[in-house]
Amino acid sequence: MAAQPLDFYFDFASPYGYFAAMAIDELAARHGRTVAWHPILLGAVFKSTGVTATVLRPLQGDYLRHDVMRSARYYGLPLVWPQVMPINAVASSRAYYWTAARDVGLARSLAKALYRAHWQEGRDISGVDAVADVATGIGMDADSLKAGLQEPAVKDALRAATDAAMARGVFGSPFIFVDGEGFWGADRLVQVERWLAQGGW
Amino acid sequence: MAAQPLDFYFDFASPYGYFAAMAIDELAARHGRTVAWHPILLGAVFKSTGVTATVLRPLQGDYLRHDVMRSARYYGLPLVWPQVMPINAVASSRAYYWTAARDVGLARSLAKALYRAHWQEGRDISGVDAVADVATGIGMDADSLKAGLQEPAVKDALRAATDAAMARGVFGSPFIFVDGEGFWGADRLVQVERWLAQGGW
Repeated sequence: MAAQPLDFYFDFASPYGYFAAMAIDELAARHGRTVAWHPILLGAVFKSTGVTATVLRPLQGDYLRHDVMRSARYYGLPLVWPQVMPINAVASSRAYYWTAARDVGLARSLAKALYRAHWQEGRDISGVDAVADVATGIGMDADSLKAGLQEPAVKDALRAATDAAMARGVFGSPFIFVDGEGFWGADRLVQVERWLAQGGW
Repeated sequence: MAAQPLDFYFDFASPYGYFAAMAIDELAARHGRTVAWHPILLGAVFKSTGVTATVLRPLQGDYLRHDVMRSARYYGLPLVWPQVMPINAVASSRAYYWTAARDVGLARSLAKALYRAHWQEGRDISGVDAVADVATGIGMDADSLKAGLQEPAVKDALRAATDAAMARGVFGSPFIFVDGEGFWGADRLVQVERWLAQGGW
């Protein structure tokens, strides 16, 4: 039986999702696994469950900013605090699904490029033009992409991914499933790796 | 200049506080440091900041239970899910401060015994009698302790510790300060250890 890919749920607005995105493919590959990427809209999850986004909670919001900057240095990843935070990740997420329907590898490159634009350069990637600009940077055609973002199938794909995530218990980003076992947070990647190495514990 | 002790804030109701409590003294000692223990009432923090306790949040509460059981095995710590969760930690926390005013080492032994009773044996340690029973188990006098829990100075000490924690930005358990740098969560102990080893990064 071929090993199942890991399921990687994330929101482009999430800095901890960025940390995981920069490491998850290599981590999985070390154990002969691949990763299925699933951008979702955490805002929809928060709205549905009546939870306030972490960054907007008293005390915790201030801590998050400090922890993110410190953790970036800890992981050895560049990080520039974005001009706008949290961004609206609708356009970025739809761009992922539109691209993935054509070329999953290219979609993954786009996702990483979007994360880098937002969290390594601090750019606001909320708008369609900003997303198209990042896509152009990896050789994609801006006009095709912009038209694609309006396709009902693309909107449906994002909605379905967010609904599926919630149905599996996802309430934060990143959220990673390994053979049905769910792990929340970039700080759980060490447990994800041990789970892959040992098949559980 | 003598190195400052680490400040360790925790709630007896917190399973991640239990994980940290079983490791923090040895971790600090490896770097020539000691730890000042500060039990607090997170419920008071949640009430003041309008935040819902993690275990009571939709989706996240179910995940917490699963993550706690799995993390206990990961850390190699025994864990029995408590009969009552979350407990009211007022009596346990006051018992700590009453004892600490007499013998800090004994107070730390009491804190560890209370954590073990609650998270290794699953006992409900909300009540004064349950706390006194745990105290008796480490050779303390139950009647003196029970009388002590009513002392205004003891009640004040717990209130002051909780207020001081909140003033420093504490919103969860465990929360550890190393030379003014705050770290939230048992999963940040690896960062705490590196901070101690390198003096920051």
